[in-house]
This record gives sequence, C-alpha cells and structure tokens, in this order.
Amino acid sequence: MDNPTFRQAGHRVVDWMADYLETVSARPVTPSVHPGEIARQLPSKPPEDGESLDAILHDLDTILMPGMAHWGHPRWFAYFPANTSPPSILAEMVTATLGAQCMSWATAPAATELEQVMMSWLGEALGLPAGLTGCIQDTASSATLVAILTARDRHADDHHRLTVYTSVEAHSSVQKSYHLAGFAPGQLRLIPTDDHFAMDPGALQQAIRHDRGADFIPAAVVATVGTTSSTAIDPVRSIGEITAREDLWLHVDAAYGGSAAVVPEYRHLLDGLEYADSFVFNPHKWLLVNFDCSAYYVRDVAALHRTFGSSPAYLATQADTKVVNYRDWGIPLGRRFRALKIWFVLRTYGLSGLREMIRRHVALAQEFAGWVDDDPHFLRVAPTPLGLVCFRAILARDADPSAEDRFTRRLLASVNRTGRVHLTSTELAGRAVMRMAIGGRTTTRADVVAAWDLIRERAAQDRRAIASGG
Amino acid sequence: MDNPTFRQAGHRVVDWMADYLETVSARPVTPSVHPGEIARQLPSKPPEDGESLDAILHDLDTILMPGMAHWGHPRWFAYFPANTSPPSILAEMVTATLGAQCMSWATAPAATELEQVMMSWLGEALGLPAGLTGCIQDTASSATLVAILTARDRHADDHHRLTVYTSVEAHSSVQKSYHLAGFAPGQLRLIPTDDHFAMDPGALQQAIRHDRGADFIPAAVVATVGTTSSTAIDPVRSIGEITAREDLWLHVDAAYGGSAAVVPEYRHLLDGLEYADSFVFNPHKWLLVNFDCSAYYVRDVAALHRTFGSSPAYLATQADTKVVNYRDWGIPLGRRFRALKIWFVLRTYGLSGLREMIRRHVALAQEFAGWVDDDPHFLRVAPTPLGLVCFRAILARDADPSAEDRFTRRLLASVNRTGRVHLTSTELAGRAVMRMAIGGRTTTRADVVAAWDLIRERAAQDRRAIASGG
Repeated sequence: MDNPTFRQAGHRVVDWMADYLETVSARPVTPSVHPGEIARQLPSKPPEDGESLDAILHDLDTILMPGMAHWGHPRWFAYFPANTSPPSILAEMVTATLGAQCMSWATAPAATELEQVMMSWLGEALGLPAGLTGCIQDTASSATLVAILTARDRHADDHHRLTVYTSVEAHSSVQKSYHLAGFAPGQLRLIPTDDHFAMDPGALQQAIRHDRGADFIPAAVVATVGTTSSTAIDPVRSIGEITAREDLWLHVDAAYGGSAAVVPEYRHLLDGLEYADSFVFNPHKWLLVNFDCSAYYVRDVAALHRTFGSSPAYLATQADTKVVNYRDWGIPLGRRFRALKIWFVLRTYGLSGLREMIRRHVALAQEFAGWVDDDPHFLRVAPTPLGLVCFRAILARDADPSAEDRFTRRLLASVNRTGRVHLTSTELAGRAVMRMAIGGRTTTRADVVAAWDLIRERAAQDRRAIASGG
Repeated sequence: MDNPTFRQAGHRVVDWMADYLETVSARPVTPSVHPGEIARQLPSKPPEDGESLDAILHDLDTILMPGMAHWGHPRWFAYFPANTSPPSILAEMVTATLGAQCMSWATAPAATELEQVMMSWLGEALGLPAGLTGCIQDTASSATLVAILTARDRHADDHHRLTVYTSVEAHSSVQKSYHLAGFAPGQLRLIPTDDHFAMDPGALQQAIRHDRGADFIPAAVVATVGTTSSTAIDPVRSIGEITAREDLWLHVDAAYGGSAAVVPEYRHLLDGLEYADSFVFNPHKWLLVNFDCSAYYVRDVAALHRTFGSSPAYLATQADTKVVNYRDWGIPLGRRFRALKIWFVLRTYGLSGLREMIRRHVALAQEFAGWVDDDPHFLRVAPTPLGLVCFRAILARDADPSAEDRFTRRLLASVNRTGRVHLTSTELAGRAVMRMAIGGRTTTRADVVAAWDLIRERAAQDRRAIASGG
C-alpha cells in the first residue's frame, strides 16, 4: 500500500470511525452471536495474494461488527468502564504511525521524557504524596505482579518462608500475581473484611503476628481502593501504619478508584498513601485514556531496577548512565508510545473537564442508589462511594436465599438479553449481586433512567412468571 | 470533543500521518537531543482547562518530533526491525475506536474468534507442526516468562530443586524471566555455544546429567532461533531430542527468526519444532504488524490455564464453558483487540507479499555480507542466515584487540552521529561488533549501499585521524 493510497484509505477509515462513534448508541449493546459463529465465516487459511481494502472493510462490517460488544455504548454498565475518547484515539493514530519502540531513552527520547512528565502530571492531578515515581504499565494486573516481584526480591534467599496478604475482596489478579511470583497457597493469607467489604486491619495485624510466631517472614500486603466487586475502600492509613511498623511492602491497587482523586472531594480515598511502596491506577478505566494504560508508582526505584533491570551488550547506548530506560521498569522489553495519549487527553479536557465527568458519574450512581433504596423490590448490598451500585432483587418476604439468588441471576440475564443495556454480576457475602457501573463517557441521565426502568419492568415480568410457575 | 469535531480532527491527523510516512526518509534517522531537553519544554503541571487540538499538534511538531528516533526510516538498521505498515496502522485506528476489552469471549466475541483464526493463519503461514495452539502476547519477553512460569508449575513443590537452561547467547529476557519466576542464580545454567554462537547440545546434555547427579530436577530449556546478537540458530531438533528424552519443557524463542518461515526455503530454521512445548515469534518485528503483537504457541493449553487461569465471580459469563477466554492465557487480565491488525496485514499483502519482502531483506543482507567479506578493512564475525550482518572494523594487521574494539565503537558512534543511518552494536566472543539489521519495510538497495559507503568513508577518516594521533 503506497503513501497516496494510505492517505485515501486513512480518510476512509476516519469516516468509518466517526460514523461508528455517532451511531454506536443505536446498536445493541451486546451481540447475539453463538460461540463459533464468527470464526465459521472466516477462511481457514490466509490468502496467498493481497486483497483490497474494500474487501477487508466489507468483512469488518458484515462479519466482525455483528459480533462486537460495544464498550463505548452509553448504556454499557458492565465491569468497570474502559473508556476511549476522541483525543485518545487521535493519539493512538499518531502512536501507530510513528511505530516507536520505547524501551530505552535512546530509542525514543521524546517518548521517554513525555512519559516522565505525564507521570508527574498524573501524580499532580491525583495529589499523590511526595516520593513516588511513575511509569506506564499495560494493566493493573501486570503492575501488581511487578510490585509483588519487587517485594519478594527484598528477601534474597527465604522465598519459601515469606507470607503475603490481601483481602478476600481483592482482585483475582492479586492472588494470581502471588502465585506467579512463586508463593505456595500456604504462604497466602486472605484477610477478612468488615461489613462494607473493606479489609479489617485488626485481622491483618493478627495474621502478621501469628505468622511471625510460626517463623514465617511477612513480606507484602496488597490493599485495594475500590474493589472490583463493590468498590470497597480498604483503610490504607491503618494498613500502612501496620506495614510501616512491621516492615512489609505495601502495594495499593486503585485500578478503578484512583482516578476519582482528580476531584478534591474524593482525594480522601487515597488517605495514607504516603505509606505505600507502590501504587497503581488505570487512566484507561476512568480518565478517558484508551486501554492499555496503567500508571504505576513506586517509592524505591532502585529496588524496581534490581528486579527488572537488564543491560545486555546489544541494548547498550551512550546515554545509559544519564537517562531513564523504561525497559528496566517492568516485564516486557518492548514498549509502545503510550504517554502520547495521556498528553492528548489531559490537554484536551484539562483537569476541570475530567473532574466534571467524574462528578457527573458519581452523582448518577448516587441517584441510581437512591432509586434502589426506595424500591422495596430491590436491596442495595454495598456502599456506593463512586460510580458502582451493587444491588440484588428481593423475591418475597422471607424468600429462600438460593431461590432469590437464582431470581437475581435470571433478572440479569433477562435484562442483558434485550441488548438495550449491559450489566454484570458478582457475589458479595455469598449472595448473587448485580453491578451497575456508571462511567461511560457518553452516558447520560436518560441512559441510567432507561436502565432502571428496564430492570424494574423485567423484574416485575419475571416475578409474575415465577408466581405463575414459570 | 464532539463527533463532528472528531471527524474533522481525524482527517487532519490522517494527513499528518500520511505526510509523516511520505517525509520520514528525509529526516535524520535519530535526533540530536540531550537528556532532559524535551522534558524542559513541557509545563510541569497539567492544564486546568482544556486546550485546542491546534495547540497540541503544534507542540507535537515542534517539541516532540525533534526528539523522536524514526524506527520506520528506510535507513534504520538498528536492533531488529519493528515495522509498522499502512494496513496495520488502519487496523490500529479501528481498534482504538472500538475500545474493546478482549479479556473474555463474552466481552468481545468477534475479537476472540478472530484471534483464534489469526493464530491458525499464522501457524499455517509458518508451517508450524500440529498440536500447537496460539494466542497473542504483547512481547516475546512476556511470552517467554509465560512459558517459564508454566514449565515451573509442572513441578508443584520442588521449585528450589529445579534447574533451567539456555545458551549464553540467549536474549536477556530469558535470564530475566528465570529470575522473575523465582529461580536463584544457582539454578540457572548458561550453556556454551559453538563457533557460530548456537547452543551446543552436547554441553546441554552433560549439564542435565550433572544436575540430575547432584539431586536437581532439570525443568526447562529455552532455545533460540535467531539470537539477538547474531541471529544464531540453536539446533532445535537436537535440543528437542534431549528435552523429550529427559522430560524438560522446551520453549523456542524465535522472536525475530520465526517470521522467516513464511518463506519455504527458510522453513528449515524451525526444524524440530515438533519437540517444542511452547514457541514464540513476533509478527511485530518482521511481518509488518504494528508493535505490540507476539504470537505465542503452546502444546498443553490446560497447563497454561493451570498457571494463568482465574474465574472470580465478577468475570463469570454464561458462555464460559463453551468458549476461549484469553484472559486465562497470560499475565494481564485486560487485552487489546490486536488480532485485527494481523487480519488487515495478512489480507492486504497476502503470503506472497510477505515472502517477497523477507526474500528481499535477506538478499540485501547477503549482498552486504559479501561487501564486508571483500573488504580487507572489515571482518564479518558471524554467519548471516537472515537479515542481520555482524562485522567489525580491522585496524591494522596484528592490532591490539582492545584498541581495535575501541576503533569499532568509535566508528559506530561516528556513523550514527551523522543521523544518516542508525546501527547498533553488540559483543560476540568478547569483541565489539557492529550490527547491520536489514528489515525496514521501505528499505531499498540504495539505502543499504548508502550505509556501506558511509561506514567505509568514516572508517577511512577515523583510521587517518588515529594514524595522525587523533
């Protein structure tokens, strides 16, 4: 494809992109395809000779698009938001074109220095405490593994004697990271939570004391600011006082919740962060930066480099002693130019634009929580500190819990099957729960109202069907 | 930024992109900036209020672009190629716009199924043996870590007794991965190579035997097809016969070299791959797919899932028992829609187009190797099986090796300082070596000739300067 052809094709694809963004709200939020239905429509072998862009875009529209779930749909209330935004998309276009490999300063000086400045901008935006230095990781799950590996390596020869801690409500990637770092199940302590699903620091202290008594070496705690199931906020200050006193590594996973700290009135969520050895939050969740883009901050950069640094002869550059080489800050050697989209987004919206968006989402969630609280057919099952509302359906007074859980799950499936909204579920205190995550860039109050109307309508239908034996 | 504004902005950025691709060959290959020079021009804090796209694009052009190294420049001969291509850029535009989170089938059905089909297409393109199932990882370094963690987990409780193997010429990410997986330096064996820098299978067999005698449990070998320093090809078949007999995990790292197997006459490079438990190659290096995109193949998918699988309540979907959820195939939970760019590239060029490109690059490398061989002032120091030529300068008959190494390094710096080409260096057998990696999408014979002319001209100048005491 020569340059004039690319220019023409690029304009054509931009129109496709703009059309998509303009029309996504009119599409079903999720597709109604069966496993294998897309693959069956594709040839089993790659073509021997090149095909036209016409053919490719035609198949994109007719084969792939009917099988896409639309994360940018205004009535996408599933998981946590993973927003794209126009300026972030523009930056990704430039990043793809430059094709820079940002492993070392010398291989992409401007990318490295923009990343340094953007990590500083984000730290400023969130009001992070002094002494934390940032870099971009792909995801919070990788960043948490990076933190745990660094924490592990503080203890040179005693890996089998280390013990590690997190709450029962922590993200699955925490347990996965502990496993990947080589910890056996017998070295992991899942700390219970309080009634609000936040880690109980007293139980943490007790577990650490018990392990010391049993000749273990307590090594690391992962605390969460905004758990995935219910956005519970672990008490970072209380936990930090323990980890500081006991000399454990404290990693704070604020993948979703961290972004809220751009708003002064939510900055308290990060109270105690000065105790953290490492901290991660995802601009790709709630700050309008395209996935992937996690911001990982660490106190002891030298410790990070001891675990992740490498300097083979074929990567040596004359600048090495004077610069930051981000290849030494994580697992992969190669790195995309991801700082560019942070720059495009922060400059396009400004902090005021991002604050306005987060305040709007939280206000909508508060309003939705109020509707749930006011409706006797539903029960809110967790606090709503941010944009997520956790609730379940009430089947009848004194209903059997397992029947009620089946009813909640049936309701979720029924609501999602309409393709008009998409919500996901979880379990809290052993009960089935619906998660309504409000955080889409284009989500309006009308979308939230439509979701609530649909949920109530389907619940009433399902209730009638059950009453009549259905 | 509303949709009409985005459409307009998108067209403007496409023109920027097409202009860049049209003019990159006229830019210096690498910038002449000093550490800190870019960062100094950026504000220390994010803006309170939004700024215009005009302002951002102006700063992109005037602040960032003068600090970029141009990986897509036709005279970029550094490292290994990391090509972009027009169809791949177009696909990245679509990917950024959809913003799909491809962690589970249900969160992106079309993306999951396209990834399955693309892994099958790539396997077909390379002629991979039966029984290997693929998925996309970000980089070969991450994929190698994934392989080593899976291999480690075959041995439940004996991690400290395991021993692991690779050649002294293996990529730095192999040693890093062994470290990250929790292996102590005393558990790692670096196997010596033959005169062509390929692993000596006899030495591997001996090391395994010795370790068994010392009550270790030999666990994994990483073999390389196309080492980073010199594209040495480890004898995969001989190594595989050993790992099969001795029951070790064999991971084959063909990050660069694997792509060559799209050409039938280079398929022999992967001879013996049927012994591999896992295999990785990088379409983002030499198959015109934008970084990041590594293709990772594994024989025992269940073993992969035992190490990387997780199924928390909040990720459960109704389809889970019937589908592939790629979140269980690697470290990060979140995943971009990377299969799309493989599809755009394979369809646009066809296998014939990719074969033609690789044949062209290898032919240019052969020709360059011939020029080196014919010039008494230079010495080729390794075989040239693919697109990389390794050579050093000859200072004088019986010159002191360290003086000659200084001369080679000075020559490299002198050549690169012109900004007309970019090459990198390595060490082979303890000697300084220049690496000329020919693999740019737009690199022509004239570019290679220009590089060789420049190298000879600078070498002659440097030689005269040294002779006159400079």
